[in-house]
Amino acid sequence: MRLSELSENRIVEMLTKGLPLEAGVLHGAGDDCAVLDWEDRGQLLLFKADCVVEGVHFSRSHSPQKVGWKALCRAISDIAAMAGRPRAALVTVAAPQDLEWDYLAGIYSGLKRAARAFPLSLVGGETSRSPGPLFLNVSLLGSSEAPPILRSGAGEGDAIAVTGRLGGSFASGRHLRFVPRVKEALWLRRALPPTAMMDLSDGLAADLPRLAACSGLGFELDFASLPRARACGVHEALTDGEDYELLFTFPAKKWPSLEKNWKRQFPSVRLSKIGRITRSGQTSLEMAGFAHFHGRK
Amino acid sequence: MRLSELSENRIVEMLTKGLPLEAGVLHGAGDDCAVLDWEDRGQLLLFKADCVVEGVHFSRSHSPQKVGWKALCRAISDIAAMAGRPRAALVTVAAPQDLEWDYLAGIYSGLKRAARAFPLSLVGGETSRSPGPLFLNVSLLGSSEAPPILRSGAGEGDAIAVTGRLGGSFASGRHLRFVPRVKEALWLRRALPPTAMMDLSDGLAADLPRLAACSGLGFELDFASLPRARACGVHEALTDGEDYELLFTFPAKKWPSLEKNWKRQFPSVRLSKIGRITRSGQTSLEMAGFAHFHGRK
Repeated sequence: MRLSELSENRIVEMLTKGLPLEAGVLHGAGDDCAVLDWEDRGQLLLFKADCVVEGVHFSRSHSPQKVGWKALCRAISDIAAMAGRPRAALVTVAAPQDLEWDYLAGIYSGLKRAARAFPLSLVGGETSRSPGPLFLNVSLLGSSEAPPILRSGAGEGDAIAVTGRLGGSFASGRHLRFVPRVKEALWLRRALPPTAMMDLSDGLAADLPRLAACSGLGFELDFASLPRARACGVHEALTDGEDYELLFTFPAKKWPSLEKNWKRQFPSVRLSKIGRITRSGQTSLEMAGFAHFHGRK
Repeated sequence: MRLSELSENRIVEMLTKGLPLEAGVLHGAGDDCAVLDWEDRGQLLLFKADCVVEGVHFSRSHSPQKVGWKALCRAISDIAAMAGRPRAALVTVAAPQDLEWDYLAGIYSGLKRAARAFPLSLVGGETSRSPGPLFLNVSLLGSSEAPPILRSGAGEGDAIAVTGRLGGSFASGRHLRFVPRVKEALWLRRALPPTAMMDLSDGLAADLPRLAACSGLGFELDFASLPRARACGVHEALTDGEDYELLFTFPAKKWPSLEKNWKRQFPSVRLSKIGRITRSGQTSLEMAGFAHFHGRK
């Protein structure tokens, strides 16, 4: 059996079964970040690794500054998904020996720009030769207040909301210049807090079912209310992926005040209520035939 | 200018110049791990990322269990180099789509075995497609008492010692089954502590000059006292690499008691005094013509 015959969800499920866990791990595999109780003083440690691979997530024709920005911001987006603050990152580069120095230096320039924008520390890394494509891995530590905001906390009847506009990220180049929703997530923690949250990386059609499954519930989407990026239909908004927007749930009665306060706080970022969490395991995506539209990344 | 025209030391030096550093970072790039002062209670956070790449550090003909063991143990060895305890790891896998599931499952079996041996938690990871070789990155958190044991603390006249036997790691397969020197390093911290320490990954001829340079000093090696692995000469012991032994320095007058107590504590692990730290920038390796024997990994 080859990996190409298995879905990403199934591969992850099989690989993460029975991982060794010592004391101090609040959440291991299965959420946006691992959550560690490091020192027992109310501050949690968030821990995330993420990679971008040439030929999968970027190509050599892309600006190296943007590739570096994207590599770090993808991991920052996972810290944001738990309403955490990014703190310190390590970068692993495996590079072909014929790579131009200027390209690698450009990647680091983008990494540094992203680090300064949040801000976080770049505390080192590792370099290796690659006999194939250029490979970048970012390991990121963050901190968050307790309790963490997980994917698993949604309740029946909760409203589902999403930041920004969905779809067309690759076509428009947004996947190379997006700004992770760190400050929006910190604000949401104070304003609500969300009952469950994650960031959208594989597209709503893949990611919302994951959030619902983690919470042991179903969902209904209001397709007409999906915030679509320019030139995108519902299908693109659901399946293009690489949106890096926040998807979160909260008690439905809080929507009117949330909507009002959000507009005052973030006038240039759209916030949309797109559906609700249901009891049933059935989802409106399956009913609409949207399951399995996403490819393996 | 292509990467192949630059030494690894030079690439790392150029990439790590001017990295953004926020408060709480005690040591960023340039040592075995980054050292973070996370909660100010005497326990430091050690942070390390390391990768193994198919065709560079292993081949598909190697047992996947051993490849997984190696991937995690390389990073553990860097935690040991600072006399720390490994605590929690994330694993990134970028795999070609034609990879057999059993091979990937075997790698995870080796990762789990290594995690249980120390023990540490495997708290998740990331999977991606690779259009080229199989790529594994391990991000590892550890803890250590303060102060950290760095590469930069060696003093003039200090003795230089090394654990185990050097050379032949690739030829003998030791690079796939070595046991990182965690307990030996913890014992050395109590018994001495070392003034400077690192683990040997690129070979003594590359690594000892790095330790001396970090400390702003030179060194003299007693070539006759090098602990050589079976079938290895001095040249192999100096340059083969992948030894994952501890290299450390300490006040020379402590050697007799250290040697005696070590033998009682670790009867099956050799400990060798191999030279001394000198004031001069000149090194006995240069005099013996051993510089630049190592390839870029």
